[in-house]
Amino acid sequence: MLKATVYVTIKQGVLDPQGVAVQGALHSMGFQEVESLRIGKYMELSLNTDDRAEAERQIKQMCEKLLANTVVEDYRYELEG
Amino acid sequence: MLKATVYVTIKQGVLDPQGVAVQGALHSMGFQEVESLRIGKYMELSLNTDDRAEAERQIKQMCEKLLANTVVEDYRYELEG
Repeated sequence: MLKATVYVTIKQGVLDPQGVAVQGALHSMGFQEVESLRIGKYMELSLNTDDRAEAERQIKQMCEKLLANTVVEDYRYELEG
Repeated sequence: MLKATVYVTIKQGVLDPQGVAVQGALHSMGFQEVESLRIGKYMELSLNTDDRAEAERQIKQMCEKLLANTVVEDYRYELEG
């Protein structure tokens, strides 16, 4: 059993409307020191395999095909266990 | 300027319908080895301060008040720079 963590973030230069909205909300709540805020996704997966190389290949495929929209998002992942 | 990373995850025991849906989609795409998948949020903030203790206090407040719903979500954060 391997545990994988996948981070999907919006590419630099692409507008993040959710982040802008949350930053605006924080400002209006008095947190003026927030200069920028970007929101991404964080996924924890358990994989029923012990083959690290195979798991890595699968995760890359999952990210490319479903988990991230590679036109506007970047992804990175960590494998443990 | 400090950089903070905030992770918001759904509490253990609370149903994650988004994770269940994505796991189902991965299964139907042939990724049968995915045993579980949980989705959380990942936020990168720039804070216009150099006072680590103050920044930490602010981030905790932001999480409690806006960024996480502490009834069903956990949060953790890292500060750097």
